[in-house]
Amino acid sequence: MAPHLLFTITIFLAAAAVAAAAGEAPLPAFFPRAVPRQAVVEGSLRVGRGTKDQPKAPPSPYAAHFFPQQLDHFTFRPEGYATFPQKYLMNSRYWDRRGGAPIFVYTGNEGNIEWFADNTGFLLDIAPKFRALLVFIEHRFYGESVPFGPESYTSPEKLGYLSSAQALADYALLIRSLKQNLSAEASPVVVFGGSYGGSELRTRFPIGDRCFNGKKKTQFPPSFLGLEHRLHSCSAMHIPLSSSSNLTCVPPLSSFLSVLAAWFRLKYPHIAIGALASSAPILQFDDITPATSFYDGVSQNFKDESLNCLEAIKGSWDELMTKASKKGGMVEISQMFKACKKQCSGKSTWCRPIQSVYSARDWLWSAFVYTAMVDYPTAANFMKPLPAYPVKEMCKIIDRSPAGVDKLTKAIAAAGLYYNYTGSQTCFQIGNEPDAHGLHGWNFQACTEMVMGMSCSNESMFPPYTYSYKDFAESCKARYGVAPRPHWITSEYGGNRIEQVLKRFGSNIIFSNGMRDPWSRGGVLKSISDSLVALVTDEGAHHVDFRSATKDDPAWLVELRRQEIGIIQKWVDEYHAGS
Amino acid sequence: MAPHLLFTITIFLAAAAVAAAAGEAPLPAFFPRAVPRQAVVEGSLRVGRGTKDQPKAPPSPYAAHFFPQQLDHFTFRPEGYATFPQKYLMNSRYWDRRGGAPIFVYTGNEGNIEWFADNTGFLLDIAPKFRALLVFIEHRFYGESVPFGPESYTSPEKLGYLSSAQALADYALLIRSLKQNLSAEASPVVVFGGSYGGSELRTRFPIGDRCFNGKKKTQFPPSFLGLEHRLHSCSAMHIPLSSSSNLTCVPPLSSFLSVLAAWFRLKYPHIAIGALASSAPILQFDDITPATSFYDGVSQNFKDESLNCLEAIKGSWDELMTKASKKGGMVEISQMFKACKKQCSGKSTWCRPIQSVYSARDWLWSAFVYTAMVDYPTAANFMKPLPAYPVKEMCKIIDRSPAGVDKLTKAIAAAGLYYNYTGSQTCFQIGNEPDAHGLHGWNFQACTEMVMGMSCSNESMFPPYTYSYKDFAESCKARYGVAPRPHWITSEYGGNRIEQVLKRFGSNIIFSNGMRDPWSRGGVLKSISDSLVALVTDEGAHHVDFRSATKDDPAWLVELRRQEIGIIQKWVDEYHAGS
Repeated sequence: MAPHLLFTITIFLAAAAVAAAAGEAPLPAFFPRAVPRQAVVEGSLRVGRGTKDQPKAPPSPYAAHFFPQQLDHFTFRPEGYATFPQKYLMNSRYWDRRGGAPIFVYTGNEGNIEWFADNTGFLLDIAPKFRALLVFIEHRFYGESVPFGPESYTSPEKLGYLSSAQALADYALLIRSLKQNLSAEASPVVVFGGSYGGSELRTRFPIGDRCFNGKKKTQFPPSFLGLEHRLHSCSAMHIPLSSSSNLTCVPPLSSFLSVLAAWFRLKYPHIAIGALASSAPILQFDDITPATSFYDGVSQNFKDESLNCLEAIKGSWDELMTKASKKGGMVEISQMFKACKKQCSGKSTWCRPIQSVYSARDWLWSAFVYTAMVDYPTAANFMKPLPAYPVKEMCKIIDRSPAGVDKLTKAIAAAGLYYNYTGSQTCFQIGNEPDAHGLHGWNFQACTEMVMGMSCSNESMFPPYTYSYKDFAESCKARYGVAPRPHWITSEYGGNRIEQVLKRFGSNIIFSNGMRDPWSRGGVLKSISDSLVALVTDEGAHHVDFRSATKDDPAWLVELRRQEIGIIQKWVDEYHAGS
Repeated sequence: MAPHLLFTITIFLAAAAVAAAAGEAPLPAFFPRAVPRQAVVEGSLRVGRGTKDQPKAPPSPYAAHFFPQQLDHFTFRPEGYATFPQKYLMNSRYWDRRGGAPIFVYTGNEGNIEWFADNTGFLLDIAPKFRALLVFIEHRFYGESVPFGPESYTSPEKLGYLSSAQALADYALLIRSLKQNLSAEASPVVVFGGSYGGSELRTRFPIGDRCFNGKKKTQFPPSFLGLEHRLHSCSAMHIPLSSSSNLTCVPPLSSFLSVLAAWFRLKYPHIAIGALASSAPILQFDDITPATSFYDGVSQNFKDESLNCLEAIKGSWDELMTKASKKGGMVEISQMFKACKKQCSGKSTWCRPIQSVYSARDWLWSAFVYTAMVDYPTAANFMKPLPAYPVKEMCKIIDRSPAGVDKLTKAIAAAGLYYNYTGSQTCFQIGNEPDAHGLHGWNFQACTEMVMGMSCSNESMFPPYTYSYKDFAESCKARYGVAPRPHWITSEYGGNRIEQVLKRFGSNIIFSNGMRDPWSRGGVLKSISDSLVALVTDEGAHHVDFRSATKDDPAWLVELRRQEIGIIQKWVDEYHAGS
């Protein structure tokens, strides 16, 4: 395409987008402007009336503390001796310290520790029975535990201290210090790790971003739609889109760190007597688990509801791309997705609510992936507020859509359940979502050690894609200035032939997995020995066991937690018997 | 003492020392100038006729290779991605690769890998039976495996990459790569670690050395004898003496890294199916083992031979210090110790064969400590060439000394067995010993993570001393610019309550210890479980089991090795049964 023509089209599309966003064009009938809270509206992308529906948070049962943590545990270089304040939360209300009652430690993962504490009610539920101390430790480089403050993400020289091994050593030192300070040497420690998804779920990795190399603003090449992208500022963790139209089925950048509890028990048996690792995909690395397993798992959840549901989502991607490629397509897409007009603030004539079709695609993609992960049997607010069995509810929206509605519209309506179940949103931030949970840093981990190649099979509901390590590595290198180390995790923590390796080594780990969780396919699903136990539920989703008990919990979930409590009690009893 | 008087004395003593060293003053009758090779001459400090007695080394059974090793495994900082050539030795003569025969890996420790290979004939002995591949991996920062070449020891920024955790990860990556390259995935790996002593055994740590801080020559304060020390050049690893007269019973800077094999099995069970850790003092850290244990162990070995022997050595220290404090004392001491005159080369009028009484003390001290460690039942050449039961031979020298000989003379004569059993030395380098085994770097490790406080009890044959962590830390900080981390080892690898911790965790480690080895007191002396087995011999010294079998081996040693072979065979069989 000739440059001048490109320019003309760009001007036209951008102007149209601004006009659409600024105006109050009537929406199709199945796009009501507001919906009753908690009601499921079929075939619609629901919007609400803003924040007034947000419930007020109850006071936290935890007190926050900070520990002076060593920056680098594994070298003795002078700069590694620097310390940073690592946040941890404690609840000692139930603790019987003198009786040597246990300390339950949540090994924090990729986000604010408060978020984990809020979503791990299980520990608060069982603390009275065990008379346990509860400790939630924030992972370095997340939340407030940032070694270099706001500068922490600005260069690989700083961000390079973000690694799983350093995090595990953090936990070891903090726990040891805590026990000493609390005169709690007689109290055994049990670690808990469960994770959630989050961070930036993008269907493609960027190429051409050199934010770390000079910190200059970078002009990106035109997208396949012929639109010139904005000049992206090199904000931390921002992923600009690339010129390549190739889709990549990236991992949802979630849950990987639920593996920390299991690894901690394996590496620090002298610190923790046992670990409950809920939904820990410790076999998702290298080629241990097939690359298509995750997205096949997501798809299976939808297929289990109805084939029609699966087919609608599967067909929506092409419809989205086709629409985007047409004249005025992005304007229409912005309307369909109910993108917030405020994204068009500023004086740029280039502005439009949704900058790129990829942002729209990512928005849909995230909704389906995370809803599949948190397909809980009760209403919950983990990633977002959702009703019980949200995949079923999404498929209801699709299956009960009016006749003649296209697949993309159905998919958008279904995604609305994820983004706006409470009806509190008046519009949607698409392509510019805030990082509400302090998830900065995860992409760096995914680009360095937490390398999981993911493909989308022809049978999945996502566009077919075969993982290319080469492309992945190039984009990571371009983005962060350092290359991935794809075999590091299995070298450091193992994974291959895990049954043979651990059959006569290690003990006291519960691997809990629910088969509704797409991550379960990368988990340990068979017990390895008497004390390396797999607890698997057909109906469970992503670490459902870690959620607070509710009166609506199904019997299988009650039983799962009962088993976990029994096993942990056995560890504690054995510890005291052995002392 | 007034400065001018100090100066006068200094001039006098130094001049006397030069004169004595340059001349050929007659020696006492019990100091023959040369002795028959291999003969024990009672009551004498033996000297020989130089190198003509040195036997020619046989060709090595190992081929040398280099592996591009990652500098920093535990961060993702760009500079950590640098690689360095890590040396390893291989012998594949006996290996049945296609049959999945095992790979025996020696996890190198603090010195040239060739030295270990030469002194671990056990592996070569058992390779045919197991049809095993033998691999000896050199530890980073020792021998030729120096990440920054000759610059490796010049700053803590570089030397800081020397740590046990990095070394273990080195082994993991190298082994994994090797197995892949050799298509040896079916071959199980067993690791072996045994260590020796070495490096700089000094009875005191330096104060005031700031070699890393500006790399300037430093003038040290006067010693307690009133002598002004030389201006020390800041050569790598050089330990200048301090002004303090306080003795410190420093650990002999040896053997600590024999723990690597045990730690490797605990941290990398997916890489190695088992470990034979011979004489591994994994409980010598923090306060798990009494601080006096090591030197009590050394003393016990001598006491077992005769109380007279113990008392002579015990009394020699005061005699040495008294003599040194007298006018002309250092000249006399230089003669007594048969210090090499070439140490007086150069034009300085300050020169004398032995610069400091501390050097003389260290020289004696090392002889007793290392001879106690290598008190083997057969002649051996590990630290130095020695006869069978060298402690017995030392005590014979003392006990059979002519009547009226003072204790210091007896002690010096006994030490001569250690330094010159072959009679090849014409004189002794004292205070300026060459580093024949590439031991650079050990002191840094002792000053950072391998922190073991050692005291000398009143009952030991050494001057009483109570360990002061504060003094130790200050001197380390002054010397290297970084402080020790005294609790790191037990945080990272455990050690406290080891029986309870490992009773239900871990497997397939043999802890082999001989009670003649003073390090054994920091070792695991009781089996922890069916597969964490302690093999203890009353008569054994420092990893005697790792030496080549000889026709003179006593029955207990033959039996010890038979047990080890049987256990390793069981591991290999279980591995293949489990595959």
